[in-house]
Amino acid sequence: MNSDKLIEAFLKFPGIGPRQAKRFVYFLAGESKDYVDQLTRLILETKSGMRQCKSCFRYYEEQNSARENLCRVCADPNRDSDLLMIVEKDVDLENIERTGVYGGKYFVLGGLLSLGGNGKADIRLKQLFDKVEKEKPAEIILATSATLEGENTNLYIERILEPLKVKISRLGRGLSTGAELEYSDTETISNALNGRK
Amino acid sequence: MNSDKLIEAFLKFPGIGPRQAKRFVYFLAGESKDYVDQLTRLILETKSGMRQCKSCFRYYEEQNSARENLCRVCADPNRDSDLLMIVEKDVDLENIERTGVYGGKYFVLGGLLSLGGNGKADIRLKQLFDKVEKEKPAEIILATSATLEGENTNLYIERILEPLKVKISRLGRGLSTGAELEYSDTETISNALNGRK
Amino acid sequence: MNSDKLIEAFLKFPGIGPRQAKRFVYFLAGESKDYVDQLTRLILETKSGMRQCKSCFRYYEEQNSARENLCRVCADPNRDSDLLMIVEKDVDLENIERTGVYGGKYFVLGGLLSLGGNGKADIRLKQLFDKVEKEKPAEIILATSATLEGENTNLYIERILEPLKVKISRLGRGLSTGAELEYSDTETISNALNGRK
Amino acid sequence: MNSDKLIEAFLKFPGIGPRQAKRFVYFLAGESKDYVDQLTRLILETKSGMRQCKSCFRYYEEQNSARENLCRVCADPNRDSDLLMIVEKDVDLENIERTGVYGGKYFVLGGLLSLGGNGKADIRLKQLFDKVEKEKPAEIILATSATLEGENTNLYIERILEPLKVKISRLGRGLSTGAELEYSDTETISNALNGRK
Repeated sequence: MNSDKLIEAFLKFPGIGPRQAKRFVYFLAGESKDYVDQLTRLILETKSGMRQCKSCFRYYEEQNSARENLCRVCADPNRDSDLLMIVEKDVDLENIERTGVYGGKYFVLGGLLSLGGNGKADIRLKQLFDKVEKEKPAEIILATSATLEGENTNLYIERILEPLKVKISRLGRGLSTGAELEYSDTETISNALNGRK
Repeated sequence: MNSDKLIEAFLKFPGIGPRQAKRFVYFLAGESKDYVDQLTRLILETKSGMRQCKSCFRYYEEQNSARENLCRVCADPNRDSDLLMIVEKDVDLENIERTGVYGGKYFVLGGLLSLGGNGKADIRLKQLFDKVEKEKPAEIILATSATLEGENTNLYIERILEPLKVKISRLGRGLSTGAELEYSDTETISNALNGRK
Repeated sequence: MNSDKLIEAFLKFPGIGPRQAKRFVYFLAGESKDYVDQLTRLILETKSGMRQCKSCFRYYEEQNSARENLCRVCADPNRDSDLLMIVEKDVDLENIERTGVYGGKYFVLGGLLSLGGNGKADIRLKQLFDKVEKEKPAEIILATSATLEGENTNLYIERILEPLKVKISRLGRGLSTGAELEYSDTETISNALNGRK
Repeated sequence: MNSDKLIEAFLKFPGIGPRQAKRFVYFLAGESKDYVDQLTRLILETKSGMRQCKSCFRYYEEQNSARENLCRVCADPNRDSDLLMIVEKDVDLENIERTGVYGGKYFVLGGLLSLGGNGKADIRLKQLFDKVEKEKPAEIILATSATLEGENTNLYIERILEPLKVKISRLGRGLSTGAELEYSDTETISNALNGRK
């Protein structure tokens, strides 16, 4: 049945399980035809209006921009091209932009390497190498999450970029806002101690 | 922008907040055009293929059924027409069907009255009255959730159906599976005591 | 060291793990000597002042009661001796008393049988048999929690009391306060349906 | 009644609410007299055997130590006296010791200033000033939790120690182990960016 296929399609949505997928179907059944028509129209138009930035590989909505196929950040001449921050995914980039504390450029990897080292084919390592080789930024900032997969990905990126002799830094580790000493792990305390100032 | 409008549309989905709505948009941006085309096609086809049962008002997917505009349960001559269970919403009905312990018919209210008594216009009280008046079931089972809104709705239904002189029962109250005496409230203990057997 | 032994002793307290046991020790170190002296005095006096009711086996604080070795409920001539409710533990009894909906007597088992049937030696099955044989209540109400262990214990009690030919009932099962139909399990729905009224 | 007074005494224990305090009383009632005697004996002996280090103000269990009234860390000639780490409470110190990454000395404040600046009388600011004035460590490391109260306390300590012209550092801020970029706050991202290396 179509509803079963639709439930299956919703299951691909991030964070959606079978129960919620089924609720989505009943929700759509109960909504007006106008809402559903508008929803599908918006999905299609948003999809076709989204471009992938040819420089940082994030997705963005096409607008009349002077330079084609570049996102707002990459097209902005006031952003510092000497700093290139590597992030895992679009929402990481969005969150960092929201804070307003970073003035450089980005590169979106599209994922992390698994602990077994799998996933090399799924993330943009080749595109990263090409970009760094061509643009030669003064500093690359590895801004993956402070997890084992993030560590692992950082190590691998450092290895493949080594021939390019570019300076590579990592986000500072230490106490996140709200962290309590009583519950902090060895690594965090060690980092916080070494990074004291 | 379309993506903002799409985020707004996703916010109407049950249980979806701003962060997840945004993730949905990025998810769609990263998926293949084929997936997105199929998703919207399935949404439209499912929506247009869903019928609202003219007897119990649940939504169901149209199939070649002998009797038009009736859901599988309402069209089934083996279901006991003397029992009419009133539920709040489609997924309640689905969950009860899944257990296989009920052999009667249903009526889907489409919501509950708020504690202030609001919402009378939004739920199918008129349709319930008409159905009961016409079909005269031997027993109506009020199967709303054991909440104040559920109680309130039960009381109101009993009042409006009173002229029809039909027997009305409520689901038994007591200990749910897993309930512990140490943490049970007065109402549950009282119901469990009165309903002992 | 004494502090290690004290941590070990605190680990026997219900719900206390190693981290909290250690915090207790530091807490006591930082408190005044007066507080600690009073605490240990209260522990000893409470312990020596607690009696176990010879009739229901609950623990209670000795006061000048007319009948010795009987708790307040067992000594109360206004409580209905024809009803005997079997509960797992003292706090269950306390919670039921708090609700004020029960006017009979109690018996505290002191635990439940494990699913494997273990624990028969640890709970007061012999004492229950003797009490029922001697007092011959009109009805025994099994008020264990609605868990598998509770079920299992109920079945076993029914079996050992069978020769005494006393009426045995169980607390009513159904929807606990707050239960929602969408998330209810088969057993609860089945019980709620059978127990409708 | 004694049991009520005991419940009240247990309510002062860290993290203990009324329900658990009551369970403690029933637990003690059901335990052997031996256990309860040993518990109170251990409480009294631990309390009387705990010393407060005259140098760092932590609590420790007295053992035959060469230097009286000094805890194991303060009495250890191999610990670096040039580093003085200020922590809020004993368990913070214990956790840092557990990691084994710090080789200096400590000072236990005994609390933090509230946001309104209250609590100055309750924490060991005077003792800290005296110790720093007398021992003149090369560096003081403020190791309070990364909360507003911790910040506030750090600022106040910096102010009162200013006349002593000692170098004061703070634990490094940045990504704690496990932190994800998508959910990090502005302050953490800003600190992680500034502290990159």
